[in-house]
Amino acid sequence: MMNWNNLDTINSYQELSKVARVNLAEVMAGESGAERVKKYSVPMGEGLVYNYAAKQVDDNVLAALAKLVEETQLAEKFEALYNGEVINTGEKRRVLHHLTRGQLGTAVVEDGVDKRVFYEEQQKRIAELAEKVHSGEITNAAGEKFTTVVQIGIGGSDLGPRAMYLALENWAKVNNTFKMEAKFISNVDPDDASAVLNSIDVEHSLFILVSKSGTTLETLTNESFVKDALKNAGLDSSRHMIAVTSETSPLAKSDDYLAAFFMDDYIGGRYSSTSAVGGAVLSLAFGPEVFAQFLEGAASEDKLARNKELLANPAMLDAMIGVYERNVLGYESTAILPYSQALSRFPAHLQQLDMESNGKSVNRFGEPVNYQTGPVIFGEPGTNGQHSFYQLLHQGTDIVPLQFVGFRENQTGRDVVIQDSTSQQKLCANVAAQIVAFACGKSDEDRNKNFEGGRPSSIIIGDGLNPKTLGVLLAHFENKVMFQGFVWNINSFDQEGVQLGKILAKRVLAHETDGALKEYSDLLNI
Amino acid sequence: MMNWNNLDTINSYQELSKVARVNLAEVMAGESGAERVKKYSVPMGEGLVYNYAAKQVDDNVLAALAKLVEETQLAEKFEALYNGEVINTGEKRRVLHHLTRGQLGTAVVEDGVDKRVFYEEQQKRIAELAEKVHSGEITNAAGEKFTTVVQIGIGGSDLGPRAMYLALENWAKVNNTFKMEAKFISNVDPDDASAVLNSIDVEHSLFILVSKSGTTLETLTNESFVKDALKNAGLDSSRHMIAVTSETSPLAKSDDYLAAFFMDDYIGGRYSSTSAVGGAVLSLAFGPEVFAQFLEGAASEDKLARNKELLANPAMLDAMIGVYERNVLGYESTAILPYSQALSRFPAHLQQLDMESNGKSVNRFGEPVNYQTGPVIFGEPGTNGQHSFYQLLHQGTDIVPLQFVGFRENQTGRDVVIQDSTSQQKLCANVAAQIVAFACGKSDEDRNKNFEGGRPSSIIIGDGLNPKTLGVLLAHFENKVMFQGFVWNINSFDQEGVQLGKILAKRVLAHETDGALKEYSDLLNI
Repeated sequence: MMNWNNLDTINSYQELSKVARVNLAEVMAGESGAERVKKYSVPMGEGLVYNYAAKQVDDNVLAALAKLVEETQLAEKFEALYNGEVINTGEKRRVLHHLTRGQLGTAVVEDGVDKRVFYEEQQKRIAELAEKVHSGEITNAAGEKFTTVVQIGIGGSDLGPRAMYLALENWAKVNNTFKMEAKFISNVDPDDASAVLNSIDVEHSLFILVSKSGTTLETLTNESFVKDALKNAGLDSSRHMIAVTSETSPLAKSDDYLAAFFMDDYIGGRYSSTSAVGGAVLSLAFGPEVFAQFLEGAASEDKLARNKELLANPAMLDAMIGVYERNVLGYESTAILPYSQALSRFPAHLQQLDMESNGKSVNRFGEPVNYQTGPVIFGEPGTNGQHSFYQLLHQGTDIVPLQFVGFRENQTGRDVVIQDSTSQQKLCANVAAQIVAFACGKSDEDRNKNFEGGRPSSIIIGDGLNPKTLGVLLAHFENKVMFQGFVWNINSFDQEGVQLGKILAKRVLAHETDGALKEYSDLLNI
Repeated sequence: MMNWNNLDTINSYQELSKVARVNLAEVMAGESGAERVKKYSVPMGEGLVYNYAAKQVDDNVLAALAKLVEETQLAEKFEALYNGEVINTGEKRRVLHHLTRGQLGTAVVEDGVDKRVFYEEQQKRIAELAEKVHSGEITNAAGEKFTTVVQIGIGGSDLGPRAMYLALENWAKVNNTFKMEAKFISNVDPDDASAVLNSIDVEHSLFILVSKSGTTLETLTNESFVKDALKNAGLDSSRHMIAVTSETSPLAKSDDYLAAFFMDDYIGGRYSSTSAVGGAVLSLAFGPEVFAQFLEGAASEDKLARNKELLANPAMLDAMIGVYERNVLGYESTAILPYSQALSRFPAHLQQLDMESNGKSVNRFGEPVNYQTGPVIFGEPGTNGQHSFYQLLHQGTDIVPLQFVGFRENQTGRDVVIQDSTSQQKLCANVAAQIVAFACGKSDEDRNKNFEGGRPSSIIIGDGLNPKTLGVLLAHFENKVMFQGFVWNINSFDQEGVQLGKILAKRVLAHETDGALKEYSDLLNI
């Protein structure tokens, strides 16, 4: 029997808040610090490790967190989720993004359809299309190969796939699997589509229209924009467009598209990178084998996430430390700091994933909660951030927990030696240095040069960023966010908070406004 | 006589905290809301307005803020700053970025040099170089024109200039002032430089090396990377590189560069977009006239910022409302939400500007302060953000103040009509709708669909984004951050918080580590 209770009613949460706080600067100094780095580390699969030595935890805190995991039945809840229970209670939907990359539990069958088989079939159909495009079996009307793929989508149809594309672009070029350049059109600002269209050769471009409902206003508007451009270039748009949508959407059976690939209501936008939403653009850009490796990486982390043992389950552990930081230590935001330029948009993806999933004030039964839920998430790649907002992270009045990511090797293999070290070594030296600087600080008589320390961070370390490790990274954060939602007893899979703005925007466009809304509309000349 | 006192010792601050709180949802409803939108608006120059109707203020709060402005002598402090007083007490430096775009007060003369004349001269020298490059008087060794300019710099030498370039790229193309494509190399991750070099034609590329000290490790490393690439292409790098640096730096008189342009210690990196740091790349990309217009816009806002009258000084007003939100209402972060794709990296620039300036825990005398200072700053362009993190902004457990920016017209003039409105109208309708949705909320029996409202925002509105309005925007936020630093009694112009990480990174590279630092270094194979 599963119990869904608010965090503040849980006994082990009360106990957790009574456990003595860890003095991070103290425990991370000297030999004790060295011991922690060795001890507080857990494998993530594909050679990655999650190291949490510089988090404000010790064996007592971890033991209390393990009790909380048990009492909140996190493993059971995850099991229920991947076995198809209706976990998205608000929208009365199952939550099945894990099945896009593997069969984790029992088969989930609905209306005679095995959902794992359905997702696999879409992946196979995409692979076939991609191969035909690459081989030249599918071409433009002039019989010429497509060279560019353009994703038209917003939110989850944009941020995740775009971040994944950028993460693997250079890797694919070096590993000779780069097939087509990908571009993305998302914003309803017409200058977005204009700029992308100006930067490509439309005659050799294949567009992917991505909208689950087939009714997303931004995406349909941008589709029209693109269709106009194709028409003006004398091209037949139906030879240049494919759709990724649900089977019941108006786009599903339209003759406007070369092909349509399907997802369903059980894959939330922000969880759709491993579905057809990410699959189409990534398979076209890098080849289906690369996308398959990415899924394999994600599947390996999902398997780890089933582990009931907190200390052997990196996503669950990351989640629980985050809850401790948010609810017991009172930290309000988290920075994502990948030391890899290829992950430049990964923080923007996690910002959506986390804030849209867990930025909620009511529990899964619609009752207000009396504790903080999801934090603000932001970040930029290092070392760039070091020359920007790190000042506040080191010496500001608020403590911001940090999530570093670092790789031993860079993607391109190209490097240069300056002052006896490579750029890659400098990059790695910087991330190591930052963790210790944040944790330990350094006292100085000049208080302006004083560093208090005590600023917690964790780091994910791997050999390199490739399709498999990227899959692990993605799934790690998806599962982390899911576990936190369980602990907070909220529904991480709906997003009612985006609705009111949509309704009011429609009213503005219909000129059905009064009061402040009318005044703002007038100011903006609508 | 100027007094520099901590905020919590100021009488009018104590009074401010006693003023009755405004119920935003209530005052923004109905006719009262309409009145507020009309009333709470102040011109910013170049046709922009700062509208703060949806901020949690009323006449009483504003009167208390005006008293605080007077007691903290904000206008006098700004005057002292632009007249050359040593406001950056930590580093014992003047703060003169305003002089890069105009003479605000009396001449600032040092060692016989009028600083305004010095900055103007650099701008003139840059204009001459840019014209020679555009006309073909300066070419590569083969006598061919340069087509691409690549900025090599990090932090303030990257974020500001990059954000400004992206803001004007499409504008320049439409207005026929687009001269050269610009690219940026910043990260010490060698994959950053590799990717940029792969995307350009080095033979026709001019590189700008930007480092005030001439010793920034990332920038020198990337310079070597680029020089290697030039050498491998059989090119003479001294014909392909210019430097922007201080007159005393090792780069200033080197034969390695075609030319060197100067800034000095009185221009902080994050305040350097209007100096040679932004001037070289923007003048080469768009022509010197465009850069001159950008400076003109910034100068017009600087003049407004001298106004002692709070309600006629948008930067000061924005600053004071921010202090009220941070210290009295207790909000910990601020989101920057420009409804313009061209401003996609403007939030990243403001993130540095604000967090590096005001993320401090000691006052200008090096004594700890007992109140919160600079907030966390993050943001993405709308409408993209609406499909991402807005869920938390609308329904999360923390309130995040919002800064919207909106324009009546898009930059390219290209648009499409769908469902009876253009994309630009949809964009504007969305920002108007969001302000009201955040402020007023909407009650619903289904608590999951309930919006509390009471979430404050302001909006900057203009006809369009062009060099002049961009200049206004930039200077507005620079001056806002400066005023907040004055109120908090901190030094907004140094960044000691970035030093410790640099020192430890050097130690790692020299293998002089022990304890946790050694363990992390080993984990990362350094």
